[in-house]
Amino acid sequence: MLEQVSSTKVFGGWLRQFNHQSEVNNCSMRFAIYLPPQAATQKVPVLYWLSGLTCTDENVMQKSGIQRVAAELGIAIVAPDTSPRGDDVADDPDASYDFGLGAGFYVNANQAPFKSNYQMYSYIVDELPALIEAKFNVNQTRSISGHSMGGHGAITIGLKNSLRYQSISAFSPICNPINCPWGQKAFNGYLGADQTSWAEYDSCELIKKTDAKIPMLVDQGNADNFLTEQLQSESLKTAANINQYPLTLRMQEGYDHSYYFISSFIEEHLRFHAKYLIK
Amino acid sequence: MLEQVSSTKVFGGWLRQFNHQSEVNNCSMRFAIYLPPQAATQKVPVLYWLSGLTCTDENVMQKSGIQRVAAELGIAIVAPDTSPRGDDVADDPDASYDFGLGAGFYVNANQAPFKSNYQMYSYIVDELPALIEAKFNVNQTRSISGHSMGGHGAITIGLKNSLRYQSISAFSPICNPINCPWGQKAFNGYLGADQTSWAEYDSCELIKKTDAKIPMLVDQGNADNFLTEQLQSESLKTAANINQYPLTLRMQEGYDHSYYFISSFIEEHLRFHAKYLIK
Repeated sequence: MLEQVSSTKVFGGWLRQFNHQSEVNNCSMRFAIYLPPQAATQKVPVLYWLSGLTCTDENVMQKSGIQRVAAELGIAIVAPDTSPRGDDVADDPDASYDFGLGAGFYVNANQAPFKSNYQMYSYIVDELPALIEAKFNVNQTRSISGHSMGGHGAITIGLKNSLRYQSISAFSPICNPINCPWGQKAFNGYLGADQTSWAEYDSCELIKKTDAKIPMLVDQGNADNFLTEQLQSESLKTAANINQYPLTLRMQEGYDHSYYFISSFIEEHLRFHAKYLIK
Repeated sequence: MLEQVSSTKVFGGWLRQFNHQSEVNNCSMRFAIYLPPQAATQKVPVLYWLSGLTCTDENVMQKSGIQRVAAELGIAIVAPDTSPRGDDVADDPDASYDFGLGAGFYVNANQAPFKSNYQMYSYIVDELPALIEAKFNVNQTRSISGHSMGGHGAITIGLKNSLRYQSISAFSPICNPINCPWGQKAFNGYLGADQTSWAEYDSCELIKKTDAKIPMLVDQGNADNFLTEQLQSESLKTAANINQYPLTLRMQEGYDHSYYFISSFIEEHLRFHAKYLIK
């Protein structure tokens, strides 16, 4: 059951927020959906947007300007939250910004106490699309994009489910979480100290061995303070080359990690996805 | 002296925040300026954007998408704060959202204790443009726009200074502050109980008697919760008609008071101003 939280007209379409009870995450989850004007009369394809650390469903809707191009092209945008939330949901005991609430990392946790709620991988891949496709005027043609932790989510989920997504894009993704502080902290907490299972959530490891090669566009600012230690886009390029994966990685001169960077290139990402979402 | 607070690349230009000591407001003021790519090689015109209650310089820069069109057209955007601020600046004793800090109403206060700092009219009309034109690669061609309280500011300042601005626009302006609760509270506090001076800051009163008729565009959502009690755009239209003022007032079906509304039409406002800013 969907509980509508808000409804706002934007660029002739409607931005709506909903709460619903997630079975896999075992808590109430909020998401936002932007329905372009075309959805009033026809089923439209969907771009899933995964946000970064500390974000909610609101950041991309408020700051990226994504609705303008989505309205032009006739693409719905779905923005889930970045973790389970609620009084009964375990958080990092230190309440840090990079683990626990707001930092689900789009994995299925197998470690207590997180495994009771942090099933963000299954939520994004299965539960949320099933709900969206049952309740809104959308078809089953999907693409996926995201920023930072959400770029990591978009690439790993896209690569592992190449039949479910037409195209993948990312801004400033965490490309190699098994080899960076953010990723190691999260994977240790959600997946445990045994690192053998970590590779299945690592974009560099996945891109080396995937058979399906769906289109992928990645933008990375070269003035991004997190580039060297946390994001490591060059590692993704190297791994893609090993498998001759057709990755388009663009280093953008002077841009940082913010939504100002995303707003500057979101139109190009939507037009990239539209080539595959709209036949 | 300008103290730079931030510098962020957006759409090929630069969004920068600065602090400076305001003489008229007698405190440190922050503003934001977006310099489009063209400003690297030539002097560009400036659109001043006045924000609404509770806002700072950041709202329009984060949420409106204004930089995209400003970058295309070669217009700088200057966003001042909405009031003086600081430990020594008087606030509403009740710390309400609609008077005192974040609610300067773009007037010159003449009542203690506010008159020591709340000289926002002089700040916007004189002090800030002089600073902008001395320190940045801009020319003296200016237009003015704003939202809600800032729409009131844009219209009143534009009408009272028709030689200084090429064009005026507003989203959801407070059109008749002398006849609405927000305006009456603010004017009573800043200007005193004697209402004879209030009319000089009222758009409806000013538009009835102005001789100079510079182009003016106003957009108002008809699903705006503040429309009837606080904004009263029909009163502006009626007053404009009395003086045959060429006001374009557009009622926008289904839109509310938020920045989602602004983002949907900001491109049209910039193209409107560009007709007069760029010869």
